Amino acid sequence: MYRYKINVEYDGSKFSGWQKQSGALTIQGAIEEAIEKLTQIKTEVVGAGRTDSGVHAIGQVAHFDLPKELTMRVINQGLNYYLKHCGVCVYGAECLGENSNFHARFSAKQRTYIYKIINRDYPLTFEENLYWFIPKDLDVVKMQESANILIGTNDLSTFRASGCQALSPIKTINAISIEKINSYINIIISAPSFLYHQVRNIVGALYFVGCGKWSIADFTYAFKSCDRTKGAITAPACGLYFYQVEY
Amino acid sequence: MYRYKINVEYDGSKFSGWQKQSGALTIQGAIEEAIEKLTQIKTEVVGAGRTDSGVHAIGQVAHFDLPKELTMRVINQGLNYYLKHCGVCVYGAECLGENSNFHARFSAKQRTYIYKIINRDYPLTFEENLYWFIPKDLDVVKMQESANILIGTNDLSTFRASGCQALSPIKTINAISIEKINSYINIIISAPSFLYHQVRNIVGALYFVGCGKWSIADFTYAFKSCDRTKGAITAPACGLYFYQVEY
Repeated sequence: MYRYKINVEYDGSKFSGWQKQSGALTIQGAIEEAIEKLTQIKTEVVGAGRTDSGVHAIGQVAHFDLPKELTMRVINQGLNYYLKHCGVCVYGAECLGENSNFHARFSAKQRTYIYKIINRDYPLTFEENLYWFIPKDLDVVKMQESANILIGTNDLSTFRASGCQALSPIKTINAISIEKINSYINIIISAPSFLYHQVRNIVGALYFVGCGKWSIADFTYAFKSCDRTKGAITAPACGLYFYQVEY
Repeated sequence: MYRYKINVEYDGSKFSGWQKQSGALTIQGAIEEAIEKLTQIKTEVVGAGRTDSGVHAIGQVAHFDLPKELTMRVINQGLNYYLKHCGVCVYGAECLGENSNFHARFSAKQRTYIYKIINRDYPLTFEENLYWFIPKDLDVVKMQESANILIGTNDLSTFRASGCQALSPIKTINAISIEKINSYINIIISAPSFLYHQVRNIVGALYFVGCGKWSIADFTYAFKSCDRTKGAITAPACGLYFYQVEY
């Protein structure tokens, strides 16, 4: 079997998440269907991360196996032909050969998410479903100061949703940077792996600091309490983008 | 009567253009309806430019009259409440008082449009209907050199669509700048006023140069011929944004 690696971009607002479910439109399902239409072969597509309903991706990575060797042009253009106008596309396909042990999920060393906010006093038109719209003024400096407290290896129970399947709440966060350009705020967070809803729960807590509902001390207290019930809100799925995977 | 000035942002893909038409969803119609819901008064909304079906706006400007004085907060928030989720919003409303002779269309000194292109080899997901997707590599330097030829006051018949109601094809172009950041190309064009489809026809001709179908000499020949039949294609409406109006 030949192993193929693809990059995937998708508008999550059009799907019930990454993972295949019967009776629901999913990104995994759409790509598997496109592969079958292109090659007449049923195969499983394994993603680096199983994004939730409404969450987008710019650089999701996935792998799958096929018994034959196809050119990258056929993979990229062929899959995109069958995925046309459905809100998913693939790019930068690679054939890793017959003996690759590359695994999109387990070989990943670092994952980066971007959480996108529009912070202005009038509602969104183009960007509905693509950003979290926050009309209240946010203090980005305080948000960055709070975010810095999370860097390193810590118990992140405060930011862990129920239903999380990770064995431990101890996770490492490599970096969080918050950029503001005009009314656009990007929160960029990199880690080897994440707990369930971790990014959205961290963004929810940073929002509490940004809008003045919490001081940095309140943020620290919530974080140190290692208790989800001491945490803030979960930021909406629509602002979250799976941005990049490093192997 | 009090004259009000508003700025308007809209996703043109959701409308049959700016101008009110019976039986069609238009931006002018949507705003007039929102004003009526807010004030119980029927009034005409006059825009700086009557954008076509599918054309977007970031900074359209419009005016309307009301027999009473309202606070800007009521205008902005009230209209946005009634326009919610329809793809239009207003911002920066101003009351110009009872004796204003400001006219959104006739007082305008300069209008700026941005034409947005995504130039990459895989299709669009998030940005469908918001950019012109061009998979062929474009030479932006040659496009800018061609664009420079158009600066000044000239007969622009080559870029004038049939159905144009302007009295003369002689128009002034103040500036055209072409920026490329990664796969995003913005063509920014400023002029006191424009012929019908002028921006889209210029962009179509710049595309011919960018993809190598035309040399700069071919572009110049087409421009100098003052004949639409010597021109290039009309770029699609979805890439065009009415960006700014100066008074």
